[in-house]
Amino acid sequence: MFTDCSSSTTSRLIHLNSLNGAFLPRPCFGQLSLRTTASTWRCTLSIRSSSSPSAIVINGKAEAKNIRDDIKIEVSRMKESIGVVPGLAVILVGKNKESATYVRNKKKACDSVGIKSFEVHLAEDSSEEEVLKSVSGFNDDPSVHGILVQLPLPSHMDEQSILNAVSIEKDVDGFHPLNIGGLAMRGREPLFLPCTPKGCIELLHRYKIDIIGKRAVVLGRSNIVGMPAALLLQREDATVTIIHSRTINPEEITRQADIIIAAVGQPNMVRGSWIKPGAVVIDVGIKRVEDPSAAHGYRWVGDVCYEEASKVASAITPVPGGVGPMTIAMLLSNTFTSAKRFHNFQ
Amino acid sequence: MFTDCSSSTTSRLIHLNSLNGAFLPRPCFGQLSLRTTASTWRCTLSIRSSSSPSAIVINGKAEAKNIRDDIKIEVSRMKESIGVVPGLAVILVGKNKESATYVRNKKKACDSVGIKSFEVHLAEDSSEEEVLKSVSGFNDDPSVHGILVQLPLPSHMDEQSILNAVSIEKDVDGFHPLNIGGLAMRGREPLFLPCTPKGCIELLHRYKIDIIGKRAVVLGRSNIVGMPAALLLQREDATVTIIHSRTINPEEITRQADIIIAAVGQPNMVRGSWIKPGAVVIDVGIKRVEDPSAAHGYRWVGDVCYEEASKVASAITPVPGGVGPMTIAMLLSNTFTSAKRFHNFQ
Repeated sequence: MFTDCSSSTTSRLIHLNSLNGAFLPRPCFGQLSLRTTASTWRCTLSIRSSSSPSAIVINGKAEAKNIRDDIKIEVSRMKESIGVVPGLAVILVGKNKESATYVRNKKKACDSVGIKSFEVHLAEDSSEEEVLKSVSGFNDDPSVHGILVQLPLPSHMDEQSILNAVSIEKDVDGFHPLNIGGLAMRGREPLFLPCTPKGCIELLHRYKIDIIGKRAVVLGRSNIVGMPAALLLQREDATVTIIHSRTINPEEITRQADIIIAAVGQPNMVRGSWIKPGAVVIDVGIKRVEDPSAAHGYRWVGDVCYEEASKVASAITPVPGGVGPMTIAMLLSNTFTSAKRFHNFQ
Repeated sequence: MFTDCSSSTTSRLIHLNSLNGAFLPRPCFGQLSLRTTASTWRCTLSIRSSSSPSAIVINGKAEAKNIRDDIKIEVSRMKESIGVVPGLAVILVGKNKESATYVRNKKKACDSVGIKSFEVHLAEDSSEEEVLKSVSGFNDDPSVHGILVQLPLPSHMDEQSILNAVSIEKDVDGFHPLNIGGLAMRGREPLFLPCTPKGCIELLHRYKIDIIGKRAVVLGRSNIVGMPAALLLQREDATVTIIHSRTINPEEITRQADIIIAAVGQPNMVRGSWIKPGAVVIDVGIKRVEDPSAAHGYRWVGDVCYEEASKVASAITPVPGGVGPMTIAMLLSNTFTSAKRFHNFQ
């Protein structure tokens, strides 16, 4: 049932294609078509059984818990000192199940550290004006220090103009172009760092992984992960290359990297052969793929073939339990930072 | 008198150091100190005499003239159609000779295409408030469509807050973080592209050099050239690596590039051995170095050792006459674009 994808023939067939910035398998040489089935997203079980992983597992779940614990103490100190409770507002539009789950998780995370959460849930057929009205309300509300517009928005809405409407001082997602500009420019400081890339770098710091002067490869150039992750690594003095859907020979370039951040949303795209021995691998990808042999009939798979990579890398994030929990921890951190800034609390 | 810097011993000694983002020669292994003298900025004369250059010379001067000619026609059409003359305002503070020359050249370039130029020249000991007042005046002046604050500003002024004060709609330099954010983000459009990087890419386009999927290396990560040039190349689907003062083995990485943009301000840093045969080289660097054998006792030298590089590259910009004239042409282009936008002129 498990297919060994490590044969050179098959791995050469995994080429990149782009749809909305995502990587998709595509047929190569007009001979074969690859789809995201067991044969493409699975990687070598045979290797798994023949040798054991050597990489340090970067435990994002545990680090995220440490961060949340620290935030909880700080939030409590703030409340006691100045009577202020940080507040995070989330605007959810429509019935997207995944979005609803994310929003629920964010609310739970806020509750766990004492951040007050506000939620507006608008119907799928709401007008853009209604969403903008909600944004504006939260912009003006002094008990709200962070505003999230849960993406994706329904297709009849202009995502850009809605995101632009979020007050820059409350843009805890860090997606505002003014924040991204500040991130790109030397000598400038963005008000907020986007949560997922910030979580990736935080993991590198917490595991005392050197960044200065290291070769880093970021796979994927999305506005919310790949691009800001590359800018962050550059700020930390890494020598950064971004690999994307138009990159020729991504495998060879990735193999030069000391640090790899994979954020393409293509299960198991990065194989063991892509990784330089001793490299550090941060896997941002997380996709649910069907697997009848798994307990619930599915499993979560990252962009990196963990079984192979963990034998080559010196450290690696698992999926799940790696970058995911850090993203929410960074959101709480950004919200708390915002509240501190609003109230000049040290 | 000419020293051949191409010997492997010497070239290995050229390492990178950083001062305000610039690359400087520094001693290596504690044995030798390199200074920017004839022995460092000169490169192989011997090679020059033994074989002839093969690279196409990218004639920035001629292309810039073509662009200026086109703008002149368009400016005239605008004036005839709607009675509007585009206006560019320059604020110069202090007595920096180079700055004064740049401002004079910009004024001359404006005159040559029919763009009206406005100039404020403030004394070195002016207050920040005085500069801000000038900025504000031009922001409000409907006959001004572009505003330049000539850098560097005197050290007692906060460059950042002055640049931030320039209306985003008139930021023809494209240095505002909102413009840089727009440049970095997919699906966004900056109002203006920074002039020098825009000029580099324009040269690539005009010489029909493929960018999509090509490996590109940008040497230097300044806010005004290196970083935006990398973002622009990325927007054009190149696979981009930024090399900077903390990069280890810049030579090896540069040698992988199909397109090299050098913007470090270190004369002759990029040697022929750094360049992959057939690569395209855009040299942004321009430094005046003493040379008693030259007509005026000095010559202009780029970041790239032209004599060596032109034998390896497939195309290369000369210094002077390469990127420099394009920068001013792009400034005129941005100013005209701004006037068109203000007056909704097609």
